[in-house]
Amino acid sequence: MADNLRSQSKLKEMALIVQKFGGTSVANPDRIKNVATRVAKYHAAGDQVVVVVSAMSGVTDGLIKMAKEIMPLPNEREMDMLLATGEQTTIALMAIALHALKVPAVSMTGAQAGIVTDGVHTKAKIQNITPKQVRSLLNQGNVVIVAGFQGQTHEGQITTLGRGGSDLTGIALAAALKADLCQIYTDVDGVYTADPRIVPGAQKLNEISYDEMLELASLGAKVMQSRSVEFAKKFGVVFEVRSSLNDNPGTIVKEETRSMEGVVIRGVSLDKNQAKITLISVPDRPGVAAAVFKAIADANINVDIIVQNVSHQTDAPSTDISFTVDKPDLLKANKVIESLKESIGYRAVTTNEKIGKVSIVGVGMRSHPGVAAKMFETLARESINIDMISTSEIKVSVVIDLAKGEQAMRAVHEAFLGK
Amino acid sequence: MADNLRSQSKLKEMALIVQKFGGTSVANPDRIKNVATRVAKYHAAGDQVVVVVSAMSGVTDGLIKMAKEIMPLPNEREMDMLLATGEQTTIALMAIALHALKVPAVSMTGAQAGIVTDGVHTKAKIQNITPKQVRSLLNQGNVVIVAGFQGQTHEGQITTLGRGGSDLTGIALAAALKADLCQIYTDVDGVYTADPRIVPGAQKLNEISYDEMLELASLGAKVMQSRSVEFAKKFGVVFEVRSSLNDNPGTIVKEETRSMEGVVIRGVSLDKNQAKITLISVPDRPGVAAAVFKAIADANINVDIIVQNVSHQTDAPSTDISFTVDKPDLLKANKVIESLKESIGYRAVTTNEKIGKVSIVGVGMRSHPGVAAKMFETLARESINIDMISTSEIKVSVVIDLAKGEQAMRAVHEAFLGK
Repeated sequence: MADNLRSQSKLKEMALIVQKFGGTSVANPDRIKNVATRVAKYHAAGDQVVVVVSAMSGVTDGLIKMAKEIMPLPNEREMDMLLATGEQTTIALMAIALHALKVPAVSMTGAQAGIVTDGVHTKAKIQNITPKQVRSLLNQGNVVIVAGFQGQTHEGQITTLGRGGSDLTGIALAAALKADLCQIYTDVDGVYTADPRIVPGAQKLNEISYDEMLELASLGAKVMQSRSVEFAKKFGVVFEVRSSLNDNPGTIVKEETRSMEGVVIRGVSLDKNQAKITLISVPDRPGVAAAVFKAIADANINVDIIVQNVSHQTDAPSTDISFTVDKPDLLKANKVIESLKESIGYRAVTTNEKIGKVSIVGVGMRSHPGVAAKMFETLARESINIDMISTSEIKVSVVIDLAKGEQAMRAVHEAFLGK
Repeated sequence: MADNLRSQSKLKEMALIVQKFGGTSVANPDRIKNVATRVAKYHAAGDQVVVVVSAMSGVTDGLIKMAKEIMPLPNEREMDMLLATGEQTTIALMAIALHALKVPAVSMTGAQAGIVTDGVHTKAKIQNITPKQVRSLLNQGNVVIVAGFQGQTHEGQITTLGRGGSDLTGIALAAALKADLCQIYTDVDGVYTADPRIVPGAQKLNEISYDEMLELASLGAKVMQSRSVEFAKKFGVVFEVRSSLNDNPGTIVKEETRSMEGVVIRGVSLDKNQAKITLISVPDRPGVAAAVFKAIADANINVDIIVQNVSHQTDAPSTDISFTVDKPDLLKANKVIESLKESIGYRAVTTNEKIGKVSIVGVGMRSHPGVAAKMFETLARESINIDMISTSEIKVSVVIDLAKGEQAMRAVHEAFLGK
């Protein structure tokens, strides 16, 4: 039982485990009781357990709605004061649910748990954690329940950590406590070689490296925010992504090991959330690309892939520049580009929302040449045209017609990961 | 305008005012905006304003309901952690509502405002307040919004103050800040000579002494808990009870002044929430009453009026003992009494829920003999039988048939306060 709970990791008899549960796992009193039952099993097995929880799903949105009813752009310090109540509610209810199972448990706000952040409200960064109280409560036999997503400045101001903040709390606490394992509970069984809803043969990965996880996170596999993975990588926190709905072992995320390199490709992802902008016949002179992407960055728009083709003519050299942005930013990006028309002097601009980005990720591809070629061949065999290409050391991405995205994903998965 | 707002009190040009708003005044974003508009007027008039708020009405009950769904008797420390979120939500929304009116405002939890309590969770007592931060924010021109009902122990544990806790926060902050005025906003216009719904001729009092207010509070006039009035009396905090629904001046509660003694009776109250228990034919020997009321007190039941009649016989002296308790405690009290039947040896016990307690209150009656007699005569003229009588230096209470309670109240009000 305990072995299954602990999954593939080789834990000591009595381990210190940080378990993070998201908003859907604690959405109502019944689900909170379910989580408590899980936590109680670890406690009964002799483990020291720190539980990190999010706000009950819907609560944060409800609070934001009320604030916006009063003022469209509420002050960020006050939003932190407001939103921090969401997690505080969950920790108290979780402690009560553990008491109902006769498990000693104490809840702590981020501030009480010693999570100190900078003063950038609504997206504060953790500066340090002094979990003295947490450790002392653990040593007295308690489960300690910590409010995710929140902290406190040195001056005692309540802050929140922004998107993915509760994952970050879990991983940062695991680092500060030198926990034996950090478990991130979610509504999927772990990290898959591809989205199982699209690729029926997709397999759950037993393990994955931080870098691969980061690429997948940034490629649209929505398991976790990059930020928490980066933090885990920086502090060497081994964590497990697993389901709060069953006892299946999840996926262990850790530093790359030699054995990982034997596997060329770790996963295939499809990102349907990109849109493409193309500037046609841009004068091919120094500084043009800089001007374009400076303006886009100033508008706070993230650019993913950039492709510039070779010049068409030699007498009045001009080129095409294409790049992708998140779909919701397309309108804004288009406006920025149109405002540059005179200063840059391009001929026309086109946009395309019907694109999909298929990526393969794996640390093994570093030592296996020909991975990109094999991907392109696979797509060619499926008569899928490649629009843009982007590569890094451990991934290859191609932009294709959105309508062929899932077909491409299945074909590529079969080619690299099929059995 | 500002004069009307400031009511009868003679305030300096720029005053420091503490304003407390209860749950119904902040029940939703619209009402929060209304309160903000009121606060903004004081701020615009140059006053320094500290706003104390309760949880939005319904919020606390909703939190309690969730906790009890998980466990019938949840841990008190965790209940404090849970319930403190209610006021924290309101302070943030109130700050945002003031920002929407371009009024600089900063919210503070009880802990941040320097409210230090003992560690008795769910009914903590304020030990001291160090409002350094509050004062500094006021001096920078901010309205400071403080979460009512909550504090923090020296060790950093979140506590709540129990029933009437937000009033107490307001009055205690006014004391600590040496505020010029403390305003308790509620849904009535102030303190009346009697409940205007029962006595059409009831008049709003311009002022009332702490002691009179205390008697009224304990006699069923539900304006405020005794506890906050006692605190105000102890620290000499002058406060005003007034309506959050209009700009009418309210009732100033303060130390007794010579002029108050000219008025014999300050008010008439009717308490319908009492029930009577009578022990019939109790052996009239020493220690019997002690045994009865020790057992009742051990069961944590408050007794209001106690009456013991003279003995019936001289050979085997026996007597009747009657006392009143809050109606919800009647069953429990009856059980306690029945458990004593053998050891005490009374003949029978009867209970009566259909009683009403009519009281007159006024510091002036000390120097005006015959007040009680006039009250009894008035009731006799109305053919209302008196069941029990209880007096203090500044009040006379009679227990009568509940059905005649309102009639009695009107007659007594007419006799003492009619125009």
